[in-house]
Amino acid sequence: MDLVGRKLDLRRGLVDLSHGAGGRAMARLIGDIFVAAFDNEMLRAGNDQSAFDVAGGRMVMTTDAYVVSPLFFPGGDIGLLAVNGTINDIAMAGATPLYMSASFVIEEGFPLADLQRIAQSMGAASRAAGVPIVTGDTKVVERGKADGVFISTACVGSAPAGVELSGDKARPGDAILLSGSIGDHGVAVMSRRQDLEFGTDVLSDTAALHGLVATMMTAGGASIRAMRDPTRGGLAATLNEIAHQSGVGARIDEAALPIKPQVAAACELLGLDPLNVANEGKLIAIVESGAAETILAAMRAHPLGAEAALIGKIVADDGRFVQMNTVFGGARIVDWLSGEQLPRIC
Amino acid sequence: MDLVGRKLDLRRGLVDLSHGAGGRAMARLIGDIFVAAFDNEMLRAGNDQSAFDVAGGRMVMTTDAYVVSPLFFPGGDIGLLAVNGTINDIAMAGATPLYMSASFVIEEGFPLADLQRIAQSMGAASRAAGVPIVTGDTKVVERGKADGVFISTACVGSAPAGVELSGDKARPGDAILLSGSIGDHGVAVMSRRQDLEFGTDVLSDTAALHGLVATMMTAGGASIRAMRDPTRGGLAATLNEIAHQSGVGARIDEAALPIKPQVAAACELLGLDPLNVANEGKLIAIVESGAAETILAAMRAHPLGAEAALIGKIVADDGRFVQMNTVFGGARIVDWLSGEQLPRIC
Repeated sequence: MDLVGRKLDLRRGLVDLSHGAGGRAMARLIGDIFVAAFDNEMLRAGNDQSAFDVAGGRMVMTTDAYVVSPLFFPGGDIGLLAVNGTINDIAMAGATPLYMSASFVIEEGFPLADLQRIAQSMGAASRAAGVPIVTGDTKVVERGKADGVFISTACVGSAPAGVELSGDKARPGDAILLSGSIGDHGVAVMSRRQDLEFGTDVLSDTAALHGLVATMMTAGGASIRAMRDPTRGGLAATLNEIAHQSGVGARIDEAALPIKPQVAAACELLGLDPLNVANEGKLIAIVESGAAETILAAMRAHPLGAEAALIGKIVADDGRFVQMNTVFGGARIVDWLSGEQLPRIC
Repeated sequence: MDLVGRKLDLRRGLVDLSHGAGGRAMARLIGDIFVAAFDNEMLRAGNDQSAFDVAGGRMVMTTDAYVVSPLFFPGGDIGLLAVNGTINDIAMAGATPLYMSASFVIEEGFPLADLQRIAQSMGAASRAAGVPIVTGDTKVVERGKADGVFISTACVGSAPAGVELSGDKARPGDAILLSGSIGDHGVAVMSRRQDLEFGTDVLSDTAALHGLVATMMTAGGASIRAMRDPTRGGLAATLNEIAHQSGVGARIDEAALPIKPQVAAACELLGLDPLNVANEGKLIAIVESGAAETILAAMRAHPLGAEAALIGKIVADDGRFVQMNTVFGGARIVDWLSGEQLPRIC
């Protein structure tokens, strides 16, 4: 859409209700901040939807809302999470992400400079991933009725014929692969919470995993039963979800879990189990045991899977329990996070 | 996903932070409220994405955020708006909506009964429209950090080969068709605003327009240049957008505009121009003048277009002005809404 009227004051300006009212000010906000940052022809056309050509076959669709607090944290920001996280949900189906949408709920008074910084971060992530943001929407609510900005992204992708990964396909004997260290994102965000602030050099692991997944699919796609990114609720929640969907148990080895010493230390300080802490650039794959070594080697050859590990296996268990062999030689149940220890981590 | 643990107290319960934490409570909320209400196999699979088969060709994608206040209003609620509105953005491309996503940002303390009522409204609308909600996400923020619930929906659809409607295709001489009366939605919502409450029997016009669009495409799709639903900012904003995109002007006739007397009266009471007031179940179509009568007849034969009217035409105008011939025989500029008179109308 054309720029209409005066430019925004991107250094000192604040979002006001007119920026969500459907008129001139909104057109300006969308043009100067979002269209400029996302920078693609489809968005520049200025319609309420975008069109693109696809090959026939299997398509995949996903959506996520992002409410992380604070909006900026070591290693990333809400915009980067929103792009990478939604791409990852497509990638976890073994699919190739193609196009994204983004919608914004912005609190009146939010600095335009911060909004631009977030939009630019999204634009850069979308270009790096090769997944353009082709359509969007902006709403503004009164001061005190939101918290800065909330972002919802949706993404569509295409899956190769015959690929139907699903959390209900885990079978006893399958291997559980994890692509790298756990807990980084959650610790990075919490280190900047006003009520908890502590020093750490841990960065969020936010990353788009579709390149890593493509490598894995090439190495042994037919042997991959399910993939999932252990975000909210951490590895514990993800394993419990798959155990419930598939009607199986899981047994993992604590000694095999990659955890950075700083993350382990921060979790101890905060009284958290790293298994419950969110990740934003990791995946687990449930694979046929015979193919585990081949797929693991492919993961390790990719920069985002350099620390990939075989962390355990799926077992028969009508109780659908996830258990962990501890470093002390015992075993314990790995339960879902029951409460609200970690709100707004993504 | 399986229901895990105790059922929710859907009569008296409130959303708490654990419902967004990725664990057991969230699985329960999603299962008992969203999966139950949206009721389709793809969602029941419990994965972070859904897959479906599509024919190759042109696809269309759109997204919208909904922050309407109040959440329930005469003729609808936020959930109904979210489903219908996003379907309409697909329909405005002349496309057939296929699948939707929905993400929720919920304020801690929000009544589960209200959330269920909204979800059931969405489920009913999605079934009525034949567009299943196949994937979703739920986040919960602390009390005072949102306002009840915000919903973002995205939708994908397929467009027939050769159909490329776009706001930049209006040409001087084209006819402007409007599918029915303007201002109903905005007046219905405002009649329930705490600071404005006034008596009216006006209902929101929220409706899914893809059936009407299909009728129009059959009657004269090749002659339709652009369609758009005049939501936020009303008919005035939509006509100005198209004028800017196409580099043309528009001239409409006040006498031809269908407006309910109660809507006109309410607008007078509130000091609003009905041209700026939001609609949620109306469309305008820019069509080649020779096909206008045929398309108009097809619109009038559909229940959602019974009051359709030819309201004006596109004219050559380098200034890109929208003008209206008034009922008093004069003419005036129809400008975009400049400010924030009507926040959170959708």
